Amino acid sequence: MTPPPYVNPLRDPADRRLPRIAGPCGLVLFGVTGDLSRKKVMPAIYDLANRGLLPPGFSLVGFARRDWADQDFAQIVHDSVKEHARTEFREEVWRQLAEGIRFVPGAFDDDQAFAQLRRTIEELDELRGTEGNHAFYLAIPPGAFGQVVGQLDEHGLARASDGSWRRVVIEKPFGHDLASAQELDRVLAGVFSEDSVFRIDHYLGKETVQNILAIRFANEMFEPLWNANYVDHVQITMAEDVGIGGRAGYYDGIGAARDVIQNHLLQLMALVAMEEPTSFDAESLRIEKQKVLSSVTLPRRLDLTTARGQYAAGWAGGQKVGGFHDEDGVAADSTTETYAAVTLHVATRRWAGVPFYLRTGKRLGRRVTEVAVVFKRAPHQPFSENSTEELTQNALVIRVQPDEGMTVRFGSKVPGTQMEIRDVNMDFVYGGTFTESSPEAYERLILDVLLGDPPLFPRSEEVELSWKILDPILEAWAKKGTPEPYASGGWGPESADKMLARDGRTWRRP
Amino acid sequence: MTPPPYVNPLRDPADRRLPRIAGPCGLVLFGVTGDLSRKKVMPAIYDLANRGLLPPGFSLVGFARRDWADQDFAQIVHDSVKEHARTEFREEVWRQLAEGIRFVPGAFDDDQAFAQLRRTIEELDELRGTEGNHAFYLAIPPGAFGQVVGQLDEHGLARASDGSWRRVVIEKPFGHDLASAQELDRVLAGVFSEDSVFRIDHYLGKETVQNILAIRFANEMFEPLWNANYVDHVQITMAEDVGIGGRAGYYDGIGAARDVIQNHLLQLMALVAMEEPTSFDAESLRIEKQKVLSSVTLPRRLDLTTARGQYAAGWAGGQKVGGFHDEDGVAADSTTETYAAVTLHVATRRWAGVPFYLRTGKRLGRRVTEVAVVFKRAPHQPFSENSTEELTQNALVIRVQPDEGMTVRFGSKVPGTQMEIRDVNMDFVYGGTFTESSPEAYERLILDVLLGDPPLFPRSEEVELSWKILDPILEAWAKKGTPEPYASGGWGPESADKMLARDGRTWRRP
Repeated sequence: MTPPPYVNPLRDPADRRLPRIAGPCGLVLFGVTGDLSRKKVMPAIYDLANRGLLPPGFSLVGFARRDWADQDFAQIVHDSVKEHARTEFREEVWRQLAEGIRFVPGAFDDDQAFAQLRRTIEELDELRGTEGNHAFYLAIPPGAFGQVVGQLDEHGLARASDGSWRRVVIEKPFGHDLASAQELDRVLAGVFSEDSVFRIDHYLGKETVQNILAIRFANEMFEPLWNANYVDHVQITMAEDVGIGGRAGYYDGIGAARDVIQNHLLQLMALVAMEEPTSFDAESLRIEKQKVLSSVTLPRRLDLTTARGQYAAGWAGGQKVGGFHDEDGVAADSTTETYAAVTLHVATRRWAGVPFYLRTGKRLGRRVTEVAVVFKRAPHQPFSENSTEELTQNALVIRVQPDEGMTVRFGSKVPGTQMEIRDVNMDFVYGGTFTESSPEAYERLILDVLLGDPPLFPRSEEVELSWKILDPILEAWAKKGTPEPYASGGWGPESADKMLARDGRTWRRP
Repeated sequence: MTPPPYVNPLRDPADRRLPRIAGPCGLVLFGVTGDLSRKKVMPAIYDLANRGLLPPGFSLVGFARRDWADQDFAQIVHDSVKEHARTEFREEVWRQLAEGIRFVPGAFDDDQAFAQLRRTIEELDELRGTEGNHAFYLAIPPGAFGQVVGQLDEHGLARASDGSWRRVVIEKPFGHDLASAQELDRVLAGVFSEDSVFRIDHYLGKETVQNILAIRFANEMFEPLWNANYVDHVQITMAEDVGIGGRAGYYDGIGAARDVIQNHLLQLMALVAMEEPTSFDAESLRIEKQKVLSSVTLPRRLDLTTARGQYAAGWAGGQKVGGFHDEDGVAADSTTETYAAVTLHVATRRWAGVPFYLRTGKRLGRRVTEVAVVFKRAPHQPFSENSTEELTQNALVIRVQPDEGMTVRFGSKVPGTQMEIRDVNMDFVYGGTFTESSPEAYERLILDVLLGDPPLFPRSEEVELSWKILDPILEAWAKKGTPEPYASGGWGPESADKMLARDGRTWRRP
């Protein structure tokens, strides 16, 4: 007997489009006590249930080295949902979800625990109708990926019987350089087929990131301008205003380039720079993104075309704050960069000569992620020089977060009896236009995992190509010693400004 | 002794740009009691004085068949300024302006009056330093143009001595067909050089109309799209929500096409369709506009590609209202159209195959003037059909009035876990961006007359070409009898909708 289907209160019954609802399945979550699980994964599962997008008998199994019963784990999930879910808490949705919650205690090297996990899953298949379909979500340190994947394999959990599926979900970092990424892929490939591996880059689940595809390919107005004839350069920025917080253990030794550029920014760049895919299935998208990543070339003088920095004391949120070296758990001689900027070229007919500037940093002036396509000046200004003094360059800016939306900067006449032209902004704000609130990236991505819909997940080839781009830069930096300090609350090291100034350009101050 | 210069309180003293200030001169106004003079010309003169853009000794002479002294006319000007001026009333500016105000009583056939006008001007030259520079503003019915111009000629007023200037300013209608327009040009050319004739099309003085040039030619983003490769069609609309009011005497027998399409809409179209001029001087602009107007072709079947209507009873401003035939002074069998729509083509490489739809009407749903460049759909939609059900065509809309600004309509992803793309709008609003309030069109245009700066005034060639476009349509309509009635408060006659439907298109509902 399967439970009744969830009712989706957010769905307009008159809407003829078929909703994407996952079929019978369950999720096994490793690392249930971490921030990721509590703040993102568990709330997203509840939100999906609340929206009626999970199958009636959906089951959630937690696995961790805790002395917990099913009820204890259910309480953890309950609390995290109450605190972090996007949609309203409804008792009846929760009750139905809770019936499918199980807990398996054990360490990653505990064979009995994995045998118990197998029994639990088989019971759920029978009791809840999950039909042998299970995803293993590894919300655990990457050092443990190999071990857990090995255990899943050994205990017959990785391979499904005919007509059902097993999938594995991993989170970045996917290695720390090309060699380690290849090693990770080798381990995964030994147990799961590439189609069953879902690498989460949560940026790809963001509405505005997916909107890059809609804006570029559903419209007639933008694509004709989207090339070296009209584009001067592209700036892709992910700026955070916070420091590393309590995450020294993760961050120190990794740094801004590995943490953000290797995945988020290179994926954004691939979506901005790619050719139109033949369709939006995973394979067609991967081919186009991969073409971009394999066309990326680095300038010869990496010392002049990259910048790295480490935040020093300064301001954050109106408070005086210390620098990176003052953070708990950071080594006194740490050379980890908290700011990274790189210059990349895409060696294709479309982008020849157009630099892509990627930057990311912590403790910068504002939290903002955006893609700015900056156009050339008009080839000829029929106006007098005086008229266009305050006119810079046209720009199309996709704001990924916050204030999701798009801005076009262009020149307009200033009211008055002279012809004076000045930059103005034309705005589209997601929140001001749509009544629908945007799903969290994790809702979209977990649903896609359960549906087996992989377009928004980077494939192994993309991950490896990203490391190929980054490795020479990281090697050059490793030889240089300490990164340049920059004041907390500013916009990064001086060398980053100089890097653009050399090209006659400036960073946007978003 | 010349008076001290006006001080411009609106001007930032740190602004290094030279203001365009008129040199020594005066204006002679014929038709001082009409709406145009009281609501537009006199307030604009005050506003220019208040902004410090008039010469210190500027003089204003009124001419009319009234038993008035200088003081009476000054009082008329004072009242009209108090009621209609855009800028704040300042006593000291008014006092200085008032010192230069004179009145000459007389009819247009009164030789003594014109002799008196000549003496008045000569006195002003001496007393106020106007140096022989005078503009004659004919705010009078077009039937009297010839007579007044003849009198100015006969009394030696039309031709200036060396180093000074005389100009004449006329308002539409510039004839009622090609033959009468040519006759008017012949009369004017017999007395004034073409450089001295300023034809006012007040639309060209509007900020947003001038901004068409800035948007097109100061930016890199729009011009590459501005052609038949990407543009599906262009809609130029001037909709009024009011009827003809008390203006039956002017309007009946003229109609919507002569009143609005011949001048405003064809000028807008010329600015939208023209090639980049080599500069923005009058001659370069005229050449480009003229090239457009002389490239316009009409479809063969005028019955299917034009529409004309006459408003019937309906609603206006929340009130039940009668139709055109119920208006005071309208002949019971009047066939004058109050709505006109035409399809034009521009036979150039840039615009081949792109129809320009021009429409204007009274008693429509809303007061709005806009230029909408509607783009083709993307040549290929890589998304599923379901995804793009609610996506129409991209459009760039320049709003001339009200809410001056620009809107771009494009497709964006709707938040949610499916790829669903819907039209959204990106907005730029003049009033929300610039702190400067826009000068009235008449301020700009009168200042340009006094400066002798003619780019914003249509030349005789353009007027004649416009009539050449319109004459065949008017002739076809004349044979058809009564225009199609449409309900007041709606969007015009059914035939206008059918006219676009035949092309697979629809009018915007702005």
